[in-house]
Amino acid sequence: MPELRRDPIVGRWVIIATERARRPSEVPRPHERQSSGLCPFCPGHEDKTPRELYVAGRPPSAPPNSPGWKVRVVPNRYPALMIEGDLDRQAEGIYDRMNGVGAHEVIIETDDHSRDLAHLSDAEATEVLFAFKARILDLRNDLRFRYILLFKNHGPNSGATLEHSHSQLIALPVTPRHVMEEIEGARRHFEHRERCIFCDIVMQERKDRARLIHENEEFVVFAPWAPRSPFETWIVPKRHESNFEAEPKERLGLCAQALRSSLKRLGAALGDPSYNFMLHSNPLRDAPSPSYHWHIEVMPALTHLAGFEWGSGFHINPVPPEDAAEFLRLVVT
Amino acid sequence: MPELRRDPIVGRWVIIATERARRPSEVPRPHERQSSGLCPFCPGHEDKTPRELYVAGRPPSAPPNSPGWKVRVVPNRYPALMIEGDLDRQAEGIYDRMNGVGAHEVIIETDDHSRDLAHLSDAEATEVLFAFKARILDLRNDLRFRYILLFKNHGPNSGATLEHSHSQLIALPVTPRHVMEEIEGARRHFEHRERCIFCDIVMQERKDRARLIHENEEFVVFAPWAPRSPFETWIVPKRHESNFEAEPKERLGLCAQALRSSLKRLGAALGDPSYNFMLHSNPLRDAPSPSYHWHIEVMPALTHLAGFEWGSGFHINPVPPEDAAEFLRLVVT
Repeated sequence: MPELRRDPIVGRWVIIATERARRPSEVPRPHERQSSGLCPFCPGHEDKTPRELYVAGRPPSAPPNSPGWKVRVVPNRYPALMIEGDLDRQAEGIYDRMNGVGAHEVIIETDDHSRDLAHLSDAEATEVLFAFKARILDLRNDLRFRYILLFKNHGPNSGATLEHSHSQLIALPVTPRHVMEEIEGARRHFEHRERCIFCDIVMQERKDRARLIHENEEFVVFAPWAPRSPFETWIVPKRHESNFEAEPKERLGLCAQALRSSLKRLGAALGDPSYNFMLHSNPLRDAPSPSYHWHIEVMPALTHLAGFEWGSGFHINPVPPEDAAEFLRLVVT
Repeated sequence: MPELRRDPIVGRWVIIATERARRPSEVPRPHERQSSGLCPFCPGHEDKTPRELYVAGRPPSAPPNSPGWKVRVVPNRYPALMIEGDLDRQAEGIYDRMNGVGAHEVIIETDDHSRDLAHLSDAEATEVLFAFKARILDLRNDLRFRYILLFKNHGPNSGATLEHSHSQLIALPVTPRHVMEEIEGARRHFEHRERCIFCDIVMQERKDRARLIHENEEFVVFAPWAPRSPFETWIVPKRHESNFEAEPKERLGLCAQALRSSLKRLGAALGDPSYNFMLHSNPLRDAPSPSYHWHIEVMPALTHLAGFEWGSGFHINPVPPEDAAEFLRLVVT
């Protein structure tokens, strides 16, 4: 059983996921990717994954776990957390631990091994975002979970181990600290000004235009004021909404268009870089919030975290977001 | 002039250090290391660095910036922050910025290109730690600075760009958030219990022994309860002391012995892995603290930060610290 451990000084949680490495000498090294002739995410190999939780695109008459799908969601075969068990919080002297209970799922974004999310059509990418929503709506029924983090690791420097285009979700029994920091910062802004800080940011970015990369009717893509990495890019809905899963399919379609625009520009500007993206939304048990605003953060994996970043929480970024935005606006995709 | 920018939502500071990359297309990629035939840190090449700020081991009669030294401290030739200028805090709409004023120095740990910190003698490594102390005592006289972070990047996955063994310091006009989180967590523990949480941790680790790796008269080396990465290792003084620079040279010698023990074990266990270490000490302008306790954190750079870590602040660690500690206790160095 994996274990959640809390650092007693700063309260940071760590997942000790022993199922992922059998012995200390088997710790995965950077750039060591699983590779075999057979891709478990390709059609015809449905028996190489745990049984599916969701599919799109397959006729209802076809049997489950058979080919013919366009998007397929399965449990992660090497989960960081386990779906079964109760939380069982315990102390060990001054330390805290709980059972590593949670869900860890893989969203296989396409049946075509050779295409990635940036190169799907808008309609296909919309089905991927709709699968995110469907899984959140299902998992929120499990009252052990407080938060679902959706994320994607793309490319060898991103932490990805399989090539076939996919994203992941992890449902957690606690709200993660990075999300809590955003929620608390947004709440402080709201208390002073009775406005959502993300709505204020969207307004300032659309007015300034220096960091703006792309916009459509409902979404804006920009380089944030204080980016942690060169070419960090955010996708934010223009209209206030705290919960991703509350969005109707039409708006998910416009989100897919904005996200693909961002990924295609990064790919063209930097030569298909490794990247991560993370979807931040309101916690599952909270009421819809006037101060918090869901969004996607895209982080190209261009640099290693070094001692200064680990020790300080500061990031050193050699590329001003205004320069990155100009480069991404002008690039031909 | 580099710029410090504050994220308006979570308050995270970022250094926009444009001097470090001339154009967006010149962003350094992982594993792209500066390499040339000539090492600017080797004796005889003193003119390839900015003028020295401190040396140990050279006779006082010899001229500055000449060979004959054992430890040499120079300004970083590509500084993240600039030593000259005032802070000049400004708003830009809802955003905050200030001038990137600070010091960025390199501590060249040995005159021998082929040896690294783990393979110096205890006496030589003590001179390195004494140089850290000497630079802190000098820089604290500059009232613009609130914090000095000492750190080391070793190996190609650590963010290091030069091979010759060196560590770095960055003096900052703000106390970094990771340090503030530790100070605040330690203060909460002290308010409840009137004890230092680091002293409590040292006591529990010495009693449990499951995560203990090494100890001498004054320092303990252990794998922390909730490690962010496999084989994360902390070096903590047994006696309470909030400020590294308050330590006398005898105790720095025992710290050097403990740090080298940790680095040699990691090297032998994992085959000279890349690593970072960070020295956390009390902020420059604070009174000595009964609740905070200086220490060194060593993080092997074995895995990439992936979307889940970026998005949540959680870390997934496949190696329990008890297994890592046993492995490091038993390894032959």
